Amino acid sequence: MITKLVSTQVDFQKKLSSLLAWDSVSNKQVAQTVDDIITKIRNNGDSALMDYTNTFDGTSATSMEALTIKLPALKQAFDTLNEKQKSALTIAADRVRLYHEKQKQRTWTYTEDDGTMLGQKITPLDRVGLYVPGGKAAYPSSVLMNAIPAKVAGVQDLIMVVPTPNGTSNSLVLAAAYISGVTQVFTVGGAQAIAALAYGTETIPKVDKIVGPGNIYVATAKRAVFGQVGIDMIAGPSEILIICDGKTNPDWIAMDLFSQAEHDEDAQSILLCPDADFINQVEKSIAKLLPTMDRKSIIETALTNRGALILTKDMDEAIALSNQIAPEHLELSVENPQEMLDGIQHAGAIFMGRYTCESLGDYCAGPNHVLPTSGTARFSSPLGVYDFQKKSSLIMVSDQGANTLGKIAATLADGEGLQAHAESAKYRMKK
Amino acid sequence: MITKLVSTQVDFQKKLSSLLAWDSVSNKQVAQTVDDIITKIRNNGDSALMDYTNTFDGTSATSMEALTIKLPALKQAFDTLNEKQKSALTIAADRVRLYHEKQKQRTWTYTEDDGTMLGQKITPLDRVGLYVPGGKAAYPSSVLMNAIPAKVAGVQDLIMVVPTPNGTSNSLVLAAAYISGVTQVFTVGGAQAIAALAYGTETIPKVDKIVGPGNIYVATAKRAVFGQVGIDMIAGPSEILIICDGKTNPDWIAMDLFSQAEHDEDAQSILLCPDADFINQVEKSIAKLLPTMDRKSIIETALTNRGALILTKDMDEAIALSNQIAPEHLELSVENPQEMLDGIQHAGAIFMGRYTCESLGDYCAGPNHVLPTSGTARFSSPLGVYDFQKKSSLIMVSDQGANTLGKIAATLADGEGLQAHAESAKYRMKK
Repeated sequence: MITKLVSTQVDFQKKLSSLLAWDSVSNKQVAQTVDDIITKIRNNGDSALMDYTNTFDGTSATSMEALTIKLPALKQAFDTLNEKQKSALTIAADRVRLYHEKQKQRTWTYTEDDGTMLGQKITPLDRVGLYVPGGKAAYPSSVLMNAIPAKVAGVQDLIMVVPTPNGTSNSLVLAAAYISGVTQVFTVGGAQAIAALAYGTETIPKVDKIVGPGNIYVATAKRAVFGQVGIDMIAGPSEILIICDGKTNPDWIAMDLFSQAEHDEDAQSILLCPDADFINQVEKSIAKLLPTMDRKSIIETALTNRGALILTKDMDEAIALSNQIAPEHLELSVENPQEMLDGIQHAGAIFMGRYTCESLGDYCAGPNHVLPTSGTARFSSPLGVYDFQKKSSLIMVSDQGANTLGKIAATLADGEGLQAHAESAKYRMKK
Repeated sequence: MITKLVSTQVDFQKKLSSLLAWDSVSNKQVAQTVDDIITKIRNNGDSALMDYTNTFDGTSATSMEALTIKLPALKQAFDTLNEKQKSALTIAADRVRLYHEKQKQRTWTYTEDDGTMLGQKITPLDRVGLYVPGGKAAYPSSVLMNAIPAKVAGVQDLIMVVPTPNGTSNSLVLAAAYISGVTQVFTVGGAQAIAALAYGTETIPKVDKIVGPGNIYVATAKRAVFGQVGIDMIAGPSEILIICDGKTNPDWIAMDLFSQAEHDEDAQSILLCPDADFINQVEKSIAKLLPTMDRKSIIETALTNRGALILTKDMDEAIALSNQIAPEHLELSVENPQEMLDGIQHAGAIFMGRYTCESLGDYCAGPNHVLPTSGTARFSSPLGVYDFQKKSSLIMVSDQGANTLGKIAATLADGEGLQAHAESAKYRMKK
């Protein structure tokens, strides 16, 4: 079922490329639909938003009141959870908060000998929109992971949008919104929700940045409004890459591969291992455990279409291949993961050691589970507090500093043919 | 010539909105052209790149050799500058480097009582593409500001592309590339250069991120390849907002307004001041100084179409308006700028005090001159070292930690209906 590859095969790189290939959002039909939706929301605000929501989500709202969840309803959703769920959600939120506190950047300055002060002022964004998918992929953990870094950054207004197809809402999602400090909730979704957040309507406040996952319409809308507002990233399907030395329990590795594959049919699970026997054992564990899984059909499709067990020459080659792939999740299921860390160049999150399965990080270890996919770990980072803070350069030149710096600025401005730049600097120089 | 507004006018907010209005890149014709160019470059690589360059830049290249500038030519460009220029460029580069060193983020970790280690590993991007416009807007300072933060971050390969229309190159630009440590230079530009950097050709290496300013074709291409590679931002026209208490030399303020307006006809220069007499004096200074300017026609057009002198009720209102505008450059031409700083929420760079004209910051104070435009300072930051570093979460759970965290993860995973996530965590728990 799952593909087995050997790195020494002549066509290995070609096979690996086709395994990894993923065409990101770019569908002209979808783009046109999204453009139309954005235009209508910009022109007709709430009225267009209600029309789209009634059409796409099977609601029958005649006022925005009907598409609003008030804060007490969030608390109520939390209160109705059982104690075990309450406790798990609360501890997870606390751990995520603690970790993200360490990411908080603070204003810094330094003063030069002539009194010139330079630095950077750090401030939170004012208002952020959080998209939460509805229906089958409604994940409370995703609410925590998106909302808590924003709150830690100091964002005042956190507007959550979550579609409720045919009026169905998820109480765990609402409870997570309560515990994360979300300030307003609207039950709208799709490109219309993104447009409403980006441009504002009579009821939905215009935000500064939109974060959170969504389907192709949501992703296309986010790309379209990028620039008007900030966005987090355009996510592809989720992936895990496991590097194993062949000494972990093969059932554990099989289940870790499943835990990615169960997300959806496009999810990707890959094992890199220099031990052919172990790869066979994992294959047997997969065959043994698959029938026991609730989501076995999704897992089987994902493993068949996009999964692979890859035999490498040695651990060094496994690391090199991992860097080439730049995975979203990288599990180092080995004895001494610390020793390997220097060699790892590109990965969204690194799960170190046999005890650190990905799902611990997905829910409650502390780090964010919103991570760069499809090789974008080459240039992007996990969602973090830094995504909800912004910086302003600080420059206060002393009269003496203006004299020294003015000469340099004037010379360079003259070289660029920008006379006003040069004159403006010269005015501040001592005559 | 320049518009004068009074904040107490009934239609002031409407007038201000129309003054600030700027429609960012979104032209279907341009988008279609750019899509075609990207497709051709992806399919035909160097050959398509040479065709486009020959067509658009009036060159007659038959090999990529002809579109390559070797490193010794950069040094030669520097060596041929006069001493004053050499010194100005070197000092500016040193100051920019010193400031940006302070932005460098470092790997951090912490260990919990049960031995679980959490943190974030910080690494530089491998390879960055730097777009430098050719022709009239060829700015060596822009090379320094884009290249130096990348080098400080530790980026190994820094690929510069700069079109040389009809074979004309700018020796100051090449000298700046030399001094900033650019590693390869190709004389290509436009959407074709962006596509080549994003996807790679036989000659041009595929990069991880593309930075640098450009015209509407370059900006549209950057938006199109965003996700395939990282990009810095989609910049609008440059702007300055000056808050003055009415006690700075009005000639200085007029020249500061000019220094923005001289960039291009769409540049925006606005003064906020509670002193009507001073506004009249600045108006007189503008009239007096304009005829002396080399670029007076550009300045006049920019000031007429997009400039404004705005009388505010008081300084507090000036600050509130500044926050509403979220300017790229904010000059606080006042006695005690430090006192005002707390009130400033959104600005790309803040130039504090009468001696700190924008042009000192543009060239050599140290902070970056690549700044968020068109109100995007609400959610974005100056270009910095952080744009060339990326983060990987670190998670190493101890056996004891796996026991505690496993329960929480399993509860939350069960709540989301993700059985494999739950099982994977349970495997690591003590039986």
